[in-house]
Amino acid sequence: MAKVDYEDRLKALGYSLPEPPKPVASYVPSVKVGKLLFVSGVLPIVGDRLLYAGKLGKEVTLEQGYEAAKVAALNALSVVKASLGGLGRVRRVVRLVGYVASSDGFRDQARVINGASDLLLQVFGENGKHSRVTVGVTELPMGAPVEIEMIVQTK
Amino acid sequence: MAKVDYEDRLKALGYSLPEPPKPVASYVPSVKVGKLLFVSGVLPIVGDRLLYAGKLGKEVTLEQGYEAAKVAALNALSVVKASLGGLGRVRRVVRLVGYVASSDGFRDQARVINGASDLLLQVFGENGKHSRVTVGVTELPMGAPVEIEMIVQTK
Amino acid sequence: MAKVDYEDRLKALGYSLPEPPKPVASYVPSVKVGKLLFVSGVLPIVGDRLLYAGKLGKEVTLEQGYEAAKVAALNALSVVKASLGGLGRVRRVVRLVGYVASSDGFRDQARVINGASDLLLQVFGENGKHSRVTVGVTELPMGAPVEIEMIVQTK
Repeated sequence: MAKVDYEDRLKALGYSLPEPPKPVASYVPSVKVGKLLFVSGVLPIVGDRLLYAGKLGKEVTLEQGYEAAKVAALNALSVVKASLGGLGRVRRVVRLVGYVASSDGFRDQARVINGASDLLLQVFGENGKHSRVTVGVTELPMGAPVEIEMIVQTK
Repeated sequence: MAKVDYEDRLKALGYSLPEPPKPVASYVPSVKVGKLLFVSGVLPIVGDRLLYAGKLGKEVTLEQGYEAAKVAALNALSVVKASLGGLGRVRRVVRLVGYVASSDGFRDQARVINGASDLLLQVFGENGKHSRVTVGVTELPMGAPVEIEMIVQTK
Repeated sequence: MAKVDYEDRLKALGYSLPEPPKPVASYVPSVKVGKLLFVSGVLPIVGDRLLYAGKLGKEVTLEQGYEAAKVAALNALSVVKASLGGLGRVRRVVRLVGYVASSDGFRDQARVINGASDLLLQVFGENGKHSRVTVGVTELPMGAPVEIEMIVQTK
């Protein structure tokens, strides 16, 4: 079996990883304990601003939410790469929690977070198959429509 | 000390495990890493529909919410059984996160999620004593009143 | 390098750890599996009542929310101490999830949860640098403004 280079695959899919979020005062982008890498919650930020702001079912459409989840997942992968020294150190994506800022009555959280899940499958194949939790919340930091929390198993 | 058969105990309590949720495209029902089994978020689905829909404090009563949490926990156990090959492989329930779809002013999330916690205690005894997080959220996928997230330690 | 006594440092900072929350019927304050200690969700309770009640952006100010997050973190540390037999058994704070009861339009969850994060840094220094997830939710048990979930790596 040929070794797959996940970073090459990302490139082939037309994606480039952003700079990982800067460490902030009070917490860090990730913590590794044993073989588990806990990635801090990431938002759909491009450069230094949100790709979209607002809630699903109101200011943000399903398609925009899907795209936002994908962008948040790319940000998470940039943290993983910076933390581990390369995506090649990923053995398995273990857990994805997707928080969706939801207006009253919006119940399609699963399809929004598919934006993140689909990307993980495209990049990591079988090793990208993760357990997932998806919930709808009132508000997210900065008014983000989605936030992604990730746990990765390392080699 | 006599070995307890957890599946017998479930039966003696009058419960039967449903078919585990089908793997969906973008994620899987559970991921095992080392001795930890991460179970995907489960809803109170019976057959292919929700036992109850709506929010606590509005469409769903406390008693119905308690029942829904129990049914979601049974669904989680069906995933655990399918993933490990039997509930006998469970060493300890580590973590339960209970999300409760809550209307404004509903603050009894703890009693709702007791429906899941009480079941885990009944089935696993001491090994069912788990750490727990309970929160009230705006909306859950499909309009579910509760969602359960679980981490289990295996033998 | 002189060994730092985390409990001395807490005292020097002017804090004293409360009695850990009593184990309740359906779940326990924490579960340890391998080197990971999973702490149950903790509220900003002092004695037997909430320090503040209500939502950020409404009944509870940013400053009060920050204070509430700090108090919840102290309660979490009291659980850690009771579970491990002393804070000296902490190797690293791995994960902090901060749930903030948020009224519509409140988007400053990060600054609220800094009340918990800043305390962890003050007490544990480098070992207190944690990964973090911060979300805004509708309601929390008892009407609490914040809830803290923690995972700690032990020695």
